[in-house]
Amino acid sequence: MSKTNAGYFFEDYHVGQILHHATPRTLHTGDVAMYQALYGPRFALQSSWDFACPGSGLCNPIIDDLITFHTVFGKSVPDISLNAVANLGYGEGRFLHRVESGDTVHSWSEIIGVKENSSGKTGIIWVRTKGFANSDTPVLEYVRWVMVRKRDVSSPAPEAIVPDLAKVVAPETLHIPETLDWSAYNFTQAGEPHRWGDYQIGEIIDHVDGVTLTDAEHMMAARLWQNTAKVHFDVTARADGRRLIYGGHIISLARALSFNGLANAQLIAAINAGSHAAPAYAGDTIRAWSEVLDTAETTNPHVGALRLRLVATKGEPGALRSEDGKYLPEVFLDLDYWALFPR
Amino acid sequence: MSKTNAGYFFEDYHVGQILHHATPRTLHTGDVAMYQALYGPRFALQSSWDFACPGSGLCNPIIDDLITFHTVFGKSVPDISLNAVANLGYGEGRFLHRVESGDTVHSWSEIIGVKENSSGKTGIIWVRTKGFANSDTPVLEYVRWVMVRKRDVSSPAPEAIVPDLAKVVAPETLHIPETLDWSAYNFTQAGEPHRWGDYQIGEIIDHVDGVTLTDAEHMMAARLWQNTAKVHFDVTARADGRRLIYGGHIISLARALSFNGLANAQLIAAINAGSHAAPAYAGDTIRAWSEVLDTAETTNPHVGALRLRLVATKGEPGALRSEDGKYLPEVFLDLDYWALFPR
Amino acid sequence: MSKTNAGYFFEDYHVGQILHHATPRTLHTGDVAMYQALYGPRFALQSSWDFACPGSGLCNPIIDDLITFHTVFGKSVPDISLNAVANLGYGEGRFLHRVESGDTVHSWSEIIGVKENSSGKTGIIWVRTKGFANSDTPVLEYVRWVMVRKRDVSSPAPEAIVPDLAKVVAPETLHIPETLDWSAYNFTQAGEPHRWGDYQIGEIIDHVDGVTLTDAEHMMAARLWQNTAKVHFDVTARADGRRLIYGGHIISLARALSFNGLANAQLIAAINAGSHAAPAYAGDTIRAWSEVLDTAETTNPHVGALRLRLVATKGEPGALRSEDGKYLPEVFLDLDYWALFPR
Repeated sequence: MSKTNAGYFFEDYHVGQILHHATPRTLHTGDVAMYQALYGPRFALQSSWDFACPGSGLCNPIIDDLITFHTVFGKSVPDISLNAVANLGYGEGRFLHRVESGDTVHSWSEIIGVKENSSGKTGIIWVRTKGFANSDTPVLEYVRWVMVRKRDVSSPAPEAIVPDLAKVVAPETLHIPETLDWSAYNFTQAGEPHRWGDYQIGEIIDHVDGVTLTDAEHMMAARLWQNTAKVHFDVTARADGRRLIYGGHIISLARALSFNGLANAQLIAAINAGSHAAPAYAGDTIRAWSEVLDTAETTNPHVGALRLRLVATKGEPGALRSEDGKYLPEVFLDLDYWALFPR
Repeated sequence: MSKTNAGYFFEDYHVGQILHHATPRTLHTGDVAMYQALYGPRFALQSSWDFACPGSGLCNPIIDDLITFHTVFGKSVPDISLNAVANLGYGEGRFLHRVESGDTVHSWSEIIGVKENSSGKTGIIWVRTKGFANSDTPVLEYVRWVMVRKRDVSSPAPEAIVPDLAKVVAPETLHIPETLDWSAYNFTQAGEPHRWGDYQIGEIIDHVDGVTLTDAEHMMAARLWQNTAKVHFDVTARADGRRLIYGGHIISLARALSFNGLANAQLIAAINAGSHAAPAYAGDTIRAWSEVLDTAETTNPHVGALRLRLVATKGEPGALRSEDGKYLPEVFLDLDYWALFPR
Repeated sequence: MSKTNAGYFFEDYHVGQILHHATPRTLHTGDVAMYQALYGPRFALQSSWDFACPGSGLCNPIIDDLITFHTVFGKSVPDISLNAVANLGYGEGRFLHRVESGDTVHSWSEIIGVKENSSGKTGIIWVRTKGFANSDTPVLEYVRWVMVRKRDVSSPAPEAIVPDLAKVVAPETLHIPETLDWSAYNFTQAGEPHRWGDYQIGEIIDHVDGVTLTDAEHMMAARLWQNTAKVHFDVTARADGRRLIYGGHIISLARALSFNGLANAQLIAAINAGSHAAPAYAGDTIRAWSEVLDTAETTNPHVGALRLRLVATKGEPGALRSEDGKYLPEVFLDLDYWALFPR
C-alpha cells in the first residue's frame, strides 16, 4: 500500500520547497467542446476561430483562459490539497501566454509561506504555482493558500512565514498577446456594443440568468482537469453524504453567465484575488453579478483593462458582505480579476 | 443593469426586421464527440470518416445536420425566444450545404409575420432564420413561429401579417451534396439492407428502444449550442421547479433512436414541419416511431428522398392524435422531414 | 416493423457463424476529451502528446486502449447481446496495434461455442470478436461468453461445443508497439517512481479513492461507444426501474482509479479474464484495488509486463471471494490483464 499517494500534511511543507506536479496534459479542441457543454460560454474569441483569426490576430484555436487555469490548478491538487481543509484564497494570478490547441501543459509549485493555526491541528501553506506550455513557455502563475491538516498534532510549529502578496496585479504588468489586433473588432458578432470606455467604476451588472447544479456535470469538469480531491467524487468522504462542488466549476459557470453584460470581456489577464466563500452542492441555483472595480489603459491602443469583481451567489446583485464584514451566506464566489476589452 | 439583455417582447418586432445573432461558433470534432455521447447516433455517414470519404464522396469530417440545426437555432434564442411562451412550430426548413469540421457558423433572422393573440397579452411572431458557414455559405434556413409576451398589455395590436408557408418542401428543391456518390454504398457497414425503394408510403416503423432523460444531459446539449433559454437551466424559472427539456434534445434523441429501422436515412435534406407537442422532463422515457409520408426521386440517380414523420412519445407506435385532432398527451414531438437514402 | 432489429436469440447462433457489425466509428481527439471527462485518467502516455512523442516514441495522439476495447465491444452489442441475460466473462483478449486519432474502427465476431443451459430457456454462446483500424489493421481481439434467451423453449438443444480457452495470454505473445522507446522514461511526469521491477507477485495495492456513480455519466459513456443495450438507458426495461450501469463504465473507472499506485502501467497489452461480478447502479460508490499476479520480461529491454488483477468494489482491498468460492456481494468487477511498465 506504500506505493499510493495519500497526500501530504502540514509538516511535509517548508518554505522554498519545489513540487513538480505529475501528468502533463495536452489541451485540444475536444476539451474546448467539453468546456462548451459544461458552461455554455458565448465569448466570441473562444467560440469562433474566425473571430480569433483573422478577426483578432490570434491564430490557432485558442484555449479559454479558465481551461488553462483549471488544468494548472488540477495538477497541483495531489501534491497540495488532497488533505486540505479549505482552499482559502487566490492572489497574484497572471496569464502570461495564450495556450493553443495541441499545447501540452505542466506545472510546478513553490511553497512560499507556512503558518500553523492556533488550534495546533492545522496550518496554512501559501503556494505559488506556475504553469507552462510545451517545454518551457510560462502560461500562468498564481498564489493560493490552503488550510492543511497536520499529521501529528504534537509536532512543533514551524517559524511562521507569511508572504506579502500584492492586493492587485499592477495593470501595467498585464500580458497583452503580442499579435492581438482589435482595430476592426466586430461588436455585432461579439454580441454587445459596450466598449471598455462604456463601463464606470462602481457599476454593478446583474447577469440575469441562473443555473441549477448537478453532480454529473461538476464531476466531469473536475475529471477533465485531473482534479482528484475526494470530496468532489465520493459521497462517503463527507459526513453529510453530499459531493462538494469543485470551486473551479463555480468560477467557470459565473464567468459564462457574465457574458450577459460583459460580452466584450474577451480575455482574462490576471486574477487579483479570489475566495470560495461558501460550498455549493447539486440542486443549488447559481446566479452572478459583477462590479467594475477599476479601469486601466494597456500598451495596446485598441485594448483596455477593467478590474472586475465577479460574484456567484444565490442572492441579490450587489449584496456581498454583512455588517460584520463576513460574506453573506448566499455568496459562493468572490473573484477579483482583470479582463481585456476592446477600446 | 442596462447593459444586459433581458430579451425582446412582442411590441419590439415588426415585419421586415432583421436580427443579426451574436457569437459565431466554430464546429469541430470535439462537438461531434459530445453529440455522440449525448445521443449515441449510429448513422455511418457521420460515424465513420471512411464511410464518408471515400465511401460517399463527402470528404472532411462532416457535421451532423442536427448539429447545424441546433447551432443556427441556438444563436437565435437571445433575440427571438428569451421571453417566449411557446415554440409553436417549424416549417420551410432546408439544408443547403453540409457543414464540415472547422467551419464557423453564424446566423441572422428576419421577422416575416406578426399577429397579436385575442388575449391581448401575447402575440405570435414568424421568423425566418438563415445560417451560414464561414463568411457567406448558406447552410440552413427555416421558419419558426413563437408565442411571445407583450411588454405592455395596453399597447395596440399591430396589423396582423401571417405568412403563407409551404406545407412541404418541394422534393425537387432538395439540396443533394454535389460530390455525394452512393454508387458503391456499403449496406453492411451502414447496418441495414433497406434501400429507398424498400419503404412504402404509410409504413410505420417502431424504433423499439427508449431513453430515460436526465437534467445533466439536456443542459449540456443546450449549452453546447449556446441556447440560453432560462427554463432549461434554472429550477426557479418555472412554478413547478422542473427544468423544461430543450426541444432540440428530443429531436436528436428521436433521430438517433430512428437508426433502428432507418439506418440508411443518412442525411436530413429538409424540415417540412415540426411541433413540440408536449413538454419533457428528467425522468420521462422517450420512444420513437416513424411513418413514411411520401417518396421522391432526386437529381442524383443513386439517391432517393423519403418524407418521414418522426414522433417522440411515451406511447404506442402509430398513435398521434385523439379524435378531436389534438396531439395525444404522450406525444412529445412530431417532426416531418425529408431524408436522403441510397437507391 | 420488420425493418428493425429486435436482437437475435440462442437458436440463431451456430459455431462458425460470422457476424459483421454495423457502423464503423472514427475515433478522434473529441473522444479523448469525453473519456477524460468521464473517468479522469492521469496516465501520462494518453494525457500528454509530448510524453507519447517524443517521450515514448509513439507519435500521433494515441487512443486509450480501453476506448478501443469499448468501441469494438459496442459494435457487437446489437448482434450479440441485445437479448443477453448476462455478460458472463472475457478471455484471450489481446491488443494488437495502437489506435491513433483519426483511425476508423470496425469489428466482426465469430461464434466459437454454444451450449444450452439445463433450464432449456437460455443458452451460452462464446464469441470471438476482432476489431480493425481502417481497412484491415487488427487492433484487438477477445472472447466473451454471454447467456442468451431462447426464442422458443421447445426448440431442440444444439450439440454443445465449449471452446478451450487459455487461462492467461502467454506473455511472450504480448504485442509491444514497435516504436515504443522508454529508454528515457520520465518518472516525474508520469507521477510515480515505481518501475516494473519494484512490484512483487502477491502485492496488493489499494487505490484509495472512490467515485459515486450517476446515470447521466454511464449513459454518455455507453452512447459514446454506440452500445445500445436497453437496460442501460430505459428505466422501464427492468422490473426494479433502475438503469444497469454499463460494465465498460466500471472497467474504465477502476482503471482510472488504479493510477494511484500503478501510474506507470501505461498500456494494457492483454485481457486474460474478466467478470462483471455484480451489477452497479447510480448512487453506488466504486473503489478499486489491484493484486500483482505475475511478472514477465518482454522483447523490449525497457519494457516489462505485469499481470494484474483489478477489482472494483464497495468493500475492503484484498477481499474477493467468500469461502464457497463465490464473489463477495460487494465486488463489481474482477479483471485480469497484462500491463506494460518501464523497466
